Amino acid sequence: MAAKSLPPPLLYADTERSPDALYFGRVGVPDAFVAFGLRGKKYAVVSALEFGRVKKTSAFDVVLPLETYTQRARELWPQRRPGAAEVIFLLAKEFKQTRFTVPEEFPAGVYEKLFELGLDLTVADGALFPARELKTPAEAAAIREGNRLSTLGFAAAEKILRASKISGRQLLYRGQPVTSESLKFAIEVAILEAGGVSSNTIVAGGDQACDPHERGSGPIRPHELIIVDIFPRVTATGYHGDMTRTFLRGRASDAQRALVAAVRAAQLAAIKAVRAGANGRHVHGKCVEVFAARGFETKRTEHGAVGFFHGTGHGLGLAVHEPPRMSGAVDYILKKDSVVTVEPGLYYPGLGGCRIEDVVQVTAAAPKLLSRYHYDWELR
Amino acid sequence: MAAKSLPPPLLYADTERSPDALYFGRVGVPDAFVAFGLRGKKYAVVSALEFGRVKKTSAFDVVLPLETYTQRARELWPQRRPGAAEVIFLLAKEFKQTRFTVPEEFPAGVYEKLFELGLDLTVADGALFPARELKTPAEAAAIREGNRLSTLGFAAAEKILRASKISGRQLLYRGQPVTSESLKFAIEVAILEAGGVSSNTIVAGGDQACDPHERGSGPIRPHELIIVDIFPRVTATGYHGDMTRTFLRGRASDAQRALVAAVRAAQLAAIKAVRAGANGRHVHGKCVEVFAARGFETKRTEHGAVGFFHGTGHGLGLAVHEPPRMSGAVDYILKKDSVVTVEPGLYYPGLGGCRIEDVVQVTAAAPKLLSRYHYDWELR
Repeated sequence: MAAKSLPPPLLYADTERSPDALYFGRVGVPDAFVAFGLRGKKYAVVSALEFGRVKKTSAFDVVLPLETYTQRARELWPQRRPGAAEVIFLLAKEFKQTRFTVPEEFPAGVYEKLFELGLDLTVADGALFPARELKTPAEAAAIREGNRLSTLGFAAAEKILRASKISGRQLLYRGQPVTSESLKFAIEVAILEAGGVSSNTIVAGGDQACDPHERGSGPIRPHELIIVDIFPRVTATGYHGDMTRTFLRGRASDAQRALVAAVRAAQLAAIKAVRAGANGRHVHGKCVEVFAARGFETKRTEHGAVGFFHGTGHGLGLAVHEPPRMSGAVDYILKKDSVVTVEPGLYYPGLGGCRIEDVVQVTAAAPKLLSRYHYDWELR
Repeated sequence: MAAKSLPPPLLYADTERSPDALYFGRVGVPDAFVAFGLRGKKYAVVSALEFGRVKKTSAFDVVLPLETYTQRARELWPQRRPGAAEVIFLLAKEFKQTRFTVPEEFPAGVYEKLFELGLDLTVADGALFPARELKTPAEAAAIREGNRLSTLGFAAAEKILRASKISGRQLLYRGQPVTSESLKFAIEVAILEAGGVSSNTIVAGGDQACDPHERGSGPIRPHELIIVDIFPRVTATGYHGDMTRTFLRGRASDAQRALVAAVRAAQLAAIKAVRAGANGRHVHGKCVEVFAARGFETKRTEHGAVGFFHGTGHGLGLAVHEPPRMSGAVDYILKKDSVVTVEPGLYYPGLGGCRIEDVVQVTAAAPKLLSRYHYDWELR
């Protein structure tokens, strides 16, 4: 189950925080639990609280009751509060397996205790399940569904923006000022209704959008660029969508139009460069070239960076950010079937920010688009 | 900042997954970042993507640009892809501090690399920030707000249940069958609108509710017990509420009434036993006594456990589950100002499940109730 020749995988995590745990067992478990692979079978150790549900609905071949092991641990070490390390030690003895591979995120506390108990753990160098990077057709469909949820969010926001009235420096919808919060609410309700959860949705206008992780707050102004970045999780599968569009309600200036056009051109150049065997750094370089050719400078100022100062894209799946990466900072060779975002952006306080993000699956030739929403951004 | 005499704290985590990181810096950062304390000051190392926002809105005294350190790491180790370990190593040299305390959840991959690089890390035995267990008045107020969001969810669900029509084995609301999904949607929208996010909301009726972590799906039936467990996160603060009520639309049987009465009696007995210096195991024992006295048996069957087979309560704050614990499995002495749920439950397939959950803050005398919603459950 782990890469060949490595010892079998061992996890101690909850599935909210660990995409590996969800990938391995295909069932949501809200509290950290022990899971491991052995001779082609998947094992989970869960409490009575989870036992029936995990047994019924997971990909685990064997589900063991946690209480049995904590009871034994209590008998063996009356002075200790039995935790994950003690349970894993007992399992290792029972299954005569003392070597395991753990993910980089494995908790150091358990790792250290298991070392003291004599287990031989190897920390995976990179992914615990390298296959997670390559998406099956079912996984690509789940990501496509995540992106469909993102588009429901764009549609909800766009509807409000289009229907809003410009009144001086205000946008009014049904008599109320349009705000980042009101747009996020409309987006998140639309996604909730369709079977997903959108957390940390970004709706940031004007200079707020120049801080790419600023989620946005307060009134949305007419004639300003508005970055809308939606990365929902599909509740049924755990897979994510991740798309960004930039809108403007009112009339764009020539400078704003040039900015948006440059970002879209950079995105198209990057998508064209995505294919199996390409270096993520090279894909990123395509965006850098487009911006340089059009005179958009990237630099650090005393108030932070301006221009294009983030990566071009990242892998997407059970995590919003996962391998591969496409940025100027690392070499990363793209593999067939991996799924990446392509999301160049430009940010200049005073002018505003623009980011456009779509999702593609890598093939030997032109990548497959897994996201689809129009690029009309100037809402007059 | 860490317990006295321990080396200063070191974290590498994102604030979505690490309540410690959020507690330390008081700012949401979606990707893992390095943070540490030194001589009374809090430091964060973040990318250009986060720099401005973290500098403006966090509790960090010093915010350092990640790129500076990855650049240095690349010069020092041209062969390596610089990661958290390399950055931390450079910081340790710069600040002449090679000993740190890391949380139990610190990633083993970084831990192992730092060990090889010669840093001297101690894994905290228990909480990295023991003060997190004791809630300030502001934190108690934030938890109270979380619980207020839970009650908005109950009100939304109850309104639909009360307005629904009983039609044979169906409950119809505006002509449509009432389902776990439709109630969860109403709950989650109400909470979203009020400034929170409710994930993994449980609305489980009939035998589904006998699996306490089953979230519920499909039609809600009349005359069956419905467990509604809502644990939202307040977006502005990151603190959670956590409350449960059990409803029934229609007419309850005598057996259902006896079940609900026993759970409420157990809850009251447990709340009465909560005070500073009390053992969580003893509080739990109060529920066990009430159930035994009323003839409600707890046992393991071939289909899973029945009766009362989970703990009585857990700490609540930036995490939904955190210390202290009140269960039959561990000794845990309650401290003044800690905040705990009190949530006994009984589960018998065929009859149904009932859980009632409130939140209290521990004092030297009777605990302070931080949750408030009525206990009328039989909606005729």
